[in-house]
Amino acid sequence: MSTFQPLTFAALWESLLPIGRDDRSGGYRRFCWTPAELECRAWFETTAAQRDLRTHGDRNGNLWAWWDVAAGEAGADAAGPAGGSGGSLPRASTGSGGSSPRAGTAVAVGSHLDSVPDGGAFDGPLGVVCAFAAIDVLREEGFVPARPIAVAAFAEEEGGRFGVACLGSRLLTGAIDANTARGLRDGDGITLAEAMRAAGHDPARIGPDEDLIARLGAYVELHIEQGRALADLDAALGIGEGIWPHGRWRLDFTGRADHAGTAALAGRSDPMLPYAATVLAARQVAAQAGTLATIGKVVAEPGAANAVCSSVRAWLDARAPGAGALNDTVDRVLTAAAEAAHSHAVTLSWMQESVTPLVEFDAGLRDRLAATLAARGIAAPALPTGAGHDAGVLAARLPTAMLFVRNPTGVSHSPAEHAEDADCLAGVTALAAVLREMAGS
Amino acid sequence: MSTFQPLTFAALWESLLPIGRDDRSGGYRRFCWTPAELECRAWFETTAAQRDLRTHGDRNGNLWAWWDVAAGEAGADAAGPAGGSGGSLPRASTGSGGSSPRAGTAVAVGSHLDSVPDGGAFDGPLGVVCAFAAIDVLREEGFVPARPIAVAAFAEEEGGRFGVACLGSRLLTGAIDANTARGLRDGDGITLAEAMRAAGHDPARIGPDEDLIARLGAYVELHIEQGRALADLDAALGIGEGIWPHGRWRLDFTGRADHAGTAALAGRSDPMLPYAATVLAARQVAAQAGTLATIGKVVAEPGAANAVCSSVRAWLDARAPGAGALNDTVDRVLTAAAEAAHSHAVTLSWMQESVTPLVEFDAGLRDRLAATLAARGIAAPALPTGAGHDAGVLAARLPTAMLFVRNPTGVSHSPAEHAEDADCLAGVTALAAVLREMAGS
Repeated sequence: MSTFQPLTFAALWESLLPIGRDDRSGGYRRFCWTPAELECRAWFETTAAQRDLRTHGDRNGNLWAWWDVAAGEAGADAAGPAGGSGGSLPRASTGSGGSSPRAGTAVAVGSHLDSVPDGGAFDGPLGVVCAFAAIDVLREEGFVPARPIAVAAFAEEEGGRFGVACLGSRLLTGAIDANTARGLRDGDGITLAEAMRAAGHDPARIGPDEDLIARLGAYVELHIEQGRALADLDAALGIGEGIWPHGRWRLDFTGRADHAGTAALAGRSDPMLPYAATVLAARQVAAQAGTLATIGKVVAEPGAANAVCSSVRAWLDARAPGAGALNDTVDRVLTAAAEAAHSHAVTLSWMQESVTPLVEFDAGLRDRLAATLAARGIAAPALPTGAGHDAGVLAARLPTAMLFVRNPTGVSHSPAEHAEDADCLAGVTALAAVLREMAGS
Repeated sequence: MSTFQPLTFAALWESLLPIGRDDRSGGYRRFCWTPAELECRAWFETTAAQRDLRTHGDRNGNLWAWWDVAAGEAGADAAGPAGGSGGSLPRASTGSGGSSPRAGTAVAVGSHLDSVPDGGAFDGPLGVVCAFAAIDVLREEGFVPARPIAVAAFAEEEGGRFGVACLGSRLLTGAIDANTARGLRDGDGITLAEAMRAAGHDPARIGPDEDLIARLGAYVELHIEQGRALADLDAALGIGEGIWPHGRWRLDFTGRADHAGTAALAGRSDPMLPYAATVLAARQVAAQAGTLATIGKVVAEPGAANAVCSSVRAWLDARAPGAGALNDTVDRVLTAAAEAAHSHAVTLSWMQESVTPLVEFDAGLRDRLAATLAARGIAAPALPTGAGHDAGVLAARLPTAMLFVRNPTGVSHSPAEHAEDADCLAGVTALAAVLREMAGS
């Protein structure tokens, strides 16, 4: 057992910062099961070990650092191979939301360590670092947990490598079929199964993990805000209200490759043209509907400067306050795409790659968070969000909630993403308060 | 010296066909100095050796297979280290075009072996294979050249690897600076100098080669037609009239990466939107002006499905019957791009990557080709083209002309590109007639 060495938030943050950073852009490329992300995993294990936490890599590649309940402690239950799991979690409120009674008692806090291509330093890692720092705060004051505490880092949250966001939590909860997941391919054609095996992880074992879910009483994810709402409200922290329904659609425009210098315009079947019309239609439809529609990824083949493309593949990301508005937005964009394709003699096919319904975070847990923070003089307004999170996926199986940390510019998924030190420390204080309240005796 | 073994056109064609072919798409990826293209070079050397032709790789990576004039033959001149170069070339007409008298006597025929990404089998290789097959015809009939004959295969005609079309002929004639060329980079960041060195070729020696140019009396390039004009005229062959002025412009739209699920539309700086507007504007401007404008290559960064792009880089290919129309088309597209960028809070920068002025092929040589073919009952109407060719670059330094072979669908730069066997054989017959007429005694 290593000697416990408390680290300040800043030192912990600094220790993670260099991993997977592109020195030119300042952005991060921490894609699941790649060397940079494996280094993040090693960092997680080292950080857990420094705090005498027990690291547990689950069957789906998610990481857990357990602060187990010592045998003989109040509420402790040493039964089970994986450490303590005590009596049922005390609940601050009942009847005000979907928080059904559960057997699990563990209180999990955390987020994820992977990034989008050229993402910022905060999206994901801030929640994991704040969780470890909150544990430092509790250990410094001699806190003894009455219920198990876990720091979680979920795998492939961004879908940055295999295209399905929240893949680790979806597998854990059974929201994606294990066979489907094993066959997902990255941009180089490598399957998830191959990537896991290459990292020494058995892909045959992925899938729903009911034992693990049964041990969890609640999950609170801390995350940098990805818009400017808290900045406008002059608040360092916010409490997540819910997640807009959202999804991803792949559009394939297929035309015919041709020579840019000889093929007459009228005879062309150029898929770049309906693609361009679709980009503009998506923006216009979303602006009119008060929703979000974005195309940020496009692959044009063969991709020669002097050739008409044979195909253009694009991904539409759409989000809306409700399911009806989401469907309406996507329908209108796809209709515009089909009309543009038709008028340019191009064929269009499309498929829904993923969709996540509206998530409302557990009302009881949200109220308890708000009360805990208010008791410490921390104002944390309620915020909706258009971004998916593991807390949203887990919400189907256990009470979850989110804490957001102010992002002054609102910029996200970019090296320009930023949170001030004081606001990050407010996040540490809030998580420590939550753990003290929920995992204390 | 190897024994001469005539091969039919079909056998020669079949021997080249498998090299660099993608079995899934059926398209070719023969990029300069890559393994597939080096295999094409080996094919060229073998094919030349089978015909007792002397292979000569010039300083710029272009390949030549010389049928030298034997010492003592009419018109022969054994002076110079590289074989025969005889008296001045007889000219069929004077005063009808730019064909100034030249000391060089060699008659070169050929084209190129490299391809665009996923290009067809004919664009380039047809001219080289027909040239070798024409030599077979002449040798079969016991023809003895009075002037040297060369089969040429120019390097990097498509610009498929280093982005500058006709790179080999531009270097040979000094149309591009050698230092600039050495620093050109492929998509993986490898410079031309590095690629040449890796293939065992000294990049320090590239640049204008006046000795070689001085030996050439004329260059006739045979090429598959890249439109449907010959099909509409019901003719197997056509004679090139000239090449439209054309060029390539790179446009960089720079915005700000952001989260597709949280960044409000109004606050975004999304470069995909002005890019899309530019694609549509290019088509509209060209259609109105009777010119060509195409965007077939686009790179969106960071390229995540759930992130607003930080940048979109695109290449505009524009062609027009005259310099004024070309400038007008490009100006109007760039103006539309700048307006769209401004309205989306995106910055635009652009640069001209290459431009090739109007080329009119040598009138005397064209007339001579037409007369030679007419004497053999071959009708070959005159055709303009929007495609660049090495014959267009070389036209600045010596009389050049082109023969086009019918392409029934007009599709080019695509695996669907095709010419019928009978039309290819008509090309062989025509080239043999041209060589008999121009290099005979």
